[in-house]
Amino acid sequence: MSAGTRQERIAQVVRATRAKPGRFRDEHITMAHGAGGKASQTLIEGLLLPAFANDALALLGDAGIVPGDGAIVQGDAGAAPGDGGVVAGATGLALTTDSFVVKPIRFPGGSLGELAVNGTVNDLAVSGARPLALTLSLVLEEGLSAQELREQVQEIALAAERAGVQIVAGDTKVVERGHAEKMYACTTGLGALDPRARLSPRALRPGDRILVSGAIAEHGMAVMLARDEFELDAEIVSDTRSLWPAADALLQSAGAELRCMRDATRGGVASALNELARASRVCALVHESEVPVAPAVAAAAELLGIDPMYVANEGRLLAFVAPEAAAGALAALRAVPGCEHATEIGEILTEPSGMVLVDTAFGGRRVMDLLAGDPLPRIC
Amino acid sequence: MSAGTRQERIAQVVRATRAKPGRFRDEHITMAHGAGGKASQTLIEGLLLPAFANDALALLGDAGIVPGDGAIVQGDAGAAPGDGGVVAGATGLALTTDSFVVKPIRFPGGSLGELAVNGTVNDLAVSGARPLALTLSLVLEEGLSAQELREQVQEIALAAERAGVQIVAGDTKVVERGHAEKMYACTTGLGALDPRARLSPRALRPGDRILVSGAIAEHGMAVMLARDEFELDAEIVSDTRSLWPAADALLQSAGAELRCMRDATRGGVASALNELARASRVCALVHESEVPVAPAVAAAAELLGIDPMYVANEGRLLAFVAPEAAAGALAALRAVPGCEHATEIGEILTEPSGMVLVDTAFGGRRVMDLLAGDPLPRIC
Repeated sequence: MSAGTRQERIAQVVRATRAKPGRFRDEHITMAHGAGGKASQTLIEGLLLPAFANDALALLGDAGIVPGDGAIVQGDAGAAPGDGGVVAGATGLALTTDSFVVKPIRFPGGSLGELAVNGTVNDLAVSGARPLALTLSLVLEEGLSAQELREQVQEIALAAERAGVQIVAGDTKVVERGHAEKMYACTTGLGALDPRARLSPRALRPGDRILVSGAIAEHGMAVMLARDEFELDAEIVSDTRSLWPAADALLQSAGAELRCMRDATRGGVASALNELARASRVCALVHESEVPVAPAVAAAAELLGIDPMYVANEGRLLAFVAPEAAAGALAALRAVPGCEHATEIGEILTEPSGMVLVDTAFGGRRVMDLLAGDPLPRIC
Repeated sequence: MSAGTRQERIAQVVRATRAKPGRFRDEHITMAHGAGGKASQTLIEGLLLPAFANDALALLGDAGIVPGDGAIVQGDAGAAPGDGGVVAGATGLALTTDSFVVKPIRFPGGSLGELAVNGTVNDLAVSGARPLALTLSLVLEEGLSAQELREQVQEIALAAERAGVQIVAGDTKVVERGHAEKMYACTTGLGALDPRARLSPRALRPGDRILVSGAIAEHGMAVMLARDEFELDAEIVSDTRSLWPAADALLQSAGAELRCMRDATRGGVASALNELARASRVCALVHESEVPVAPAVAAAAELLGIDPMYVANEGRLLAFVAPEAAAGALAALRAVPGCEHATEIGEILTEPSGMVLVDTAFGGRRVMDLLAGDPLPRIC
């Protein structure tokens, strides 16, 4: 087939799928509204953002920048009115919040408690904010065993210690048996904006390089296999970790040439790239063959018919770096423990604006859109 | 009977019930662990505080003071590792967090969404922190009607506007039908510590006067009656409101002679007084006949056999003021809309340390201890 024909077909798909501000028309909440895909986007853009309209939320960063006292604030989209942020004062602070409902609460490589710390620490880290303190609010199911609670509390304490943050405030509620599943946790993180860069989901520019801090899709696969819904036994452990050391290394290496960072959680790398391409009105092009995926993960994904690009990560970030700083940033990232497999996986183009394209291993190019459904509910 | 005999009986009860640091020995979580009474206390003191040990939490304020950058932080006890607090920077900030699981989500005078804003705003206010910004994290039940969600979101937006705070960051999760009850919300509040006073749950001194900002027990009674579990029809509406105007008036009137404020939520006035008496190692004496209770509330409480002192409030605060500033503070409080029925209800004594005593309307004196059970689950 001629290049012209292929380009025409891509252009058709682009016209059909180009993102518009979502409208929330559903009559009931479905699992898809929590999955980080299209339904989540319409819930956020169609209902939550308009209701709470302010500059912080509209920015949709990972820990928003919002008007404080002579101050800035920022915010991120998960399936949320922005995952993050407040800043007040001269130096600048960031706020971010997340609820954790992962099932099961313990899985290879991690636990709900560990995610609750690392997930919120990471929303701060990718916003370029050094994590200072967390709050913790628990919803417990009547009948939860004290031993399970004790273990989760210890995981929370240990993860906080590893990440170098204190739990400074908290709350506990109990609901009747059957009105929660063991326990849910909500953490909110306060961080100090790092002066080495001014990151923004709107800052991506054509030519920027896309880095990923390690092999993808491990967290989502580990949780899914832990549910025993599939007769599949694979040695896959969650990647949950604090991403502040990785963010710190990137800030140090690239400084103002670091445009934006994002942790690729719900909806995976595909969803994070789509959000940022929309926010910056650029195209993100991914070279599929460059994306690191561990063999066990790739095999499990193929057996289950799931694209690893859509599978959640909890300890991986995407970084967008000006081309002249990309090689140095990648080297700095690879020197961080846990990021040895960091890779450059693509670049930013001008058109088609708001879209993500993938150069496949077979020489084709396809659109990588937001998912409409929910392949992996309750993943964090 | 002689005064000596009565005093001896009180002393006996005091010895039997004097609070010791709780030890968490239960094998399972029960509704009582979320009710703000003794079981909550053992969960907090026996498990959560030791695990997350730091100065901020140990203070157990309503929005803790914690080590930041040249900074202070603070924290409060609900059934929580401290309801609040972080401060960083020269001026000082406070952080507080709460989950809301009230049932039903709409009741006379309020809604879950309204509570989620006012409850967190009030934890900041009673910590002497001017509310600046909130984060909002929702856990939605699959199948929740979009209309109910839309209404709650509007209530949240309206309450935030009334309280003068912005929602600057958020998150939404969805769990399968039956694994939540319609919706739960977690809000975290960031506030600026007010320089007019330095409040602390440890600051109560013998002679201090105890003020309440209005008639008590209205929120808990309104929610309980809304559940239709009792064949009782009474015109009782929740007192939910932002308490910052009341806190502001007290700070302005009493300044440094304002020792502490506390919103009397779960466990009611009785539980708040017990916590503070323990923290300050003093006795709180309440004159029962002075405590304002609306006739409809008193009648419903009597019919149901519930002491209004243990019923939750969502728009009432307790203030502890040095004796010379008490009259001025009360006048200032009464000038605030919604606080017209503010009253002085008691005073602080030296002994018995850590206890709350009540002078009853019949001339007796009894110990008002923490509740062991859970009279009103899911009240906020």
